[in-house]
Amino acid sequence: MKKHRPKKVLRKTFASNLRSARKAQGLSQEALAHDANLHRTYIGSVERGERNVSIDNIERLARALGVEPADLMRHKNRDT
Amino acid sequence: MKKHRPKKVLRKTFASNLRSARKAQGLSQEALAHDANLHRTYIGSVERGERNVSIDNIERLARALGVEPADLMRHKNRDT
Repeated sequence: MKKHRPKKVLRKTFASNLRSARKAQGLSQEALAHDANLHRTYIGSVERGERNVSIDNIERLARALGVEPADLMRHKNRDT
Repeated sequence: MKKHRPKKVLRKTFASNLRSARKAQGLSQEALAHDANLHRTYIGSVERGERNVSIDNIERLARALGVEPADLMRHKNRDT
């Protein structure tokens, strides 16, 4: 029987996309933390893929950055 | 100063998309729970938007359904 164990690929994709989106807007972790009403050290740990971030916090972060949550979940293999 | 409070829109979108994707595959909550290695009652509460589901569990559920995590986060306003 094939079980689906968590591979934690998605949280790394999210971590990388979050960092890219934040930097693209010239925001510091502190500024994003302020806008998202989260703690600066939390942003850092999410961006390192250390946190099992919740969907409500994914929403806060996407709103603060003005991007679609789905865009932060997508593997960026292509530039198209 | 504009603060971004969690509006819990995203978890409702996810809940609705999860249910649709599961039903489209003719899976019961129990069958999905088995494939994703999660509990049946947990699936039910996620589909009702009651759970602040984590990114690792979003990954498990998407893998079990064979869909992209991003597709479960997207508002389905259009059919295009």
